Amino acid sequence: PAITFATDNKVLVKPNLEGLTLPEKYKDWRVISASHRTDNKSMRIILGNDIAIKASRSNQTNPWPDGTILGKLVWKQTTEKNWPTAIAPEEFIHAEFMYKDSNKFKANGTGWGWARWLGKEQKPYGDDNDLNQSCIACHTPVKGRDWVYTTPVQLP
Amino acid sequence: PAITFATDNKVLVKPNLEGLTLPEKYKDWRVISASHRTDNKSMRIILGNDIAIKASRSNQTNPWPDGTILGKLVWKQTTEKNWPTAIAPEEFIHAEFMYKDSNKFKANGTGWGWARWLGKEQKPYGDDNDLNQSCIACHTPVKGRDWVYTTPVQLP
Ligand code: HEC
Ligand code: HEC
Repeated sequence: PAITFATDNKVLVKPNLEGLTLPEKYKDWRVISASHRTDNKSMRIILGNDIAIKASRSNQTNPWPDGTILGKLVWKQTTEKNWPTAIAPEEFIHAEFMYKDSNKFKANGTGWGWARWLGKEQKPYGDDNDLNQSCIACHTPVKGRDWVYTTPVQLP
Repeated sequence: PAITFATDNKVLVKPNLEGLTLPEKYKDWRVISASHRTDNKSMRIILGNDIAIKASRSNQTNPWPDGTILGKLVWKQTTEKNWPTAIAPEEFIHAEFMYKDSNKFKANGTGWGWARWLGKEQKPYGDDNDLNQSCIACHTPVKGRDWVYTTPVQLP
């Protein structure tokens, strides 16, 4: 049966060119990891929907199950005013999502849908039908990890 | 009425000397921020219970309301194998919690209870009745922010 992400969607934010919609409740998702990109001075938090969290806690992440959505939230970095050696998030840059549906997204070679919304305006990123090619190119080094860089944190 | 954190507690992990217990469902809490301590090479994710999230989303964080619990999870840093300029969490170090109850914790001068559990064994930290003094000393620079360093991230 076709996998639907409908319960997570809202229509207030414009879908991207491929019809992918911003998961409405992403702010309430649980955390998968965080990272600090020192090359472009940004802080990232990686979240997952319920299917992703279940998969991550049971180590079923290669491949991730259909229905998984991974979200990455990116902010410019700043230094913690009262503790200058700590780097923390500041201005919001963008939100990116990967939607796992091995049938629906077979054609792009990854089994994932790829989408990004820019800034506080949540403007869909990409203006042609190859909008996911830059994502996929950049994630190719982790093709053998089901196209995912992040290793979920383990907690006691 | 006395504030109770009981619904969040489990007895499997030993309470600390002050009787503070590890919040059972902290893994399911929503995210408040993340940070990278470059001075001691660790990555941190800051989470909050429902009261904390509600306060943070409505900018009621100075003071944080009674019943707030803030959690900080700390890992040694590593570099993302396939993207070496990205810093990510690796081995788990400890979990720390601040419990806001302006009456119960009036005596220590902060209105917060302070607790840390070490490692995967979740061993309560501190072996005397002044166990929270090192926490409080270190958080004194942010006394004017209700003893909290972290500024919650804002999301569109
Ligand atoms: C410049 C290289 C690059 C490009 C372009 C890129 N990514 Fe990524 N992406 C990464 C790296 C590196 C990570 C690992 C986490 C981190 O430090 O950001 C990552 C992580 C992610 C994650 C978290 C899951 C994971 O794989 O770790 C998502 C979701 C994601 N990217 C989506 C996208 C989408 C959608 C696009 C295109 C619109 C895209 N990415 C384009 C490099 C890239
Ligand atoms: C060496 C200094 C230092 C000590 C000691 C310390 N803290 Fe902190 N704490 C910080 C800094 C700096 C932050 C800001 C986030 C970050 O980068 O870690 C922080 C953040 C936190 C947070 C997240 C909320 C906030 O204030 O940002 C909690 C919870 C916390 N600490 C609890 C504790 C507890 C409990 C203890 C003692 C058992 C403790 N801390 C001892 C420096 C310290």
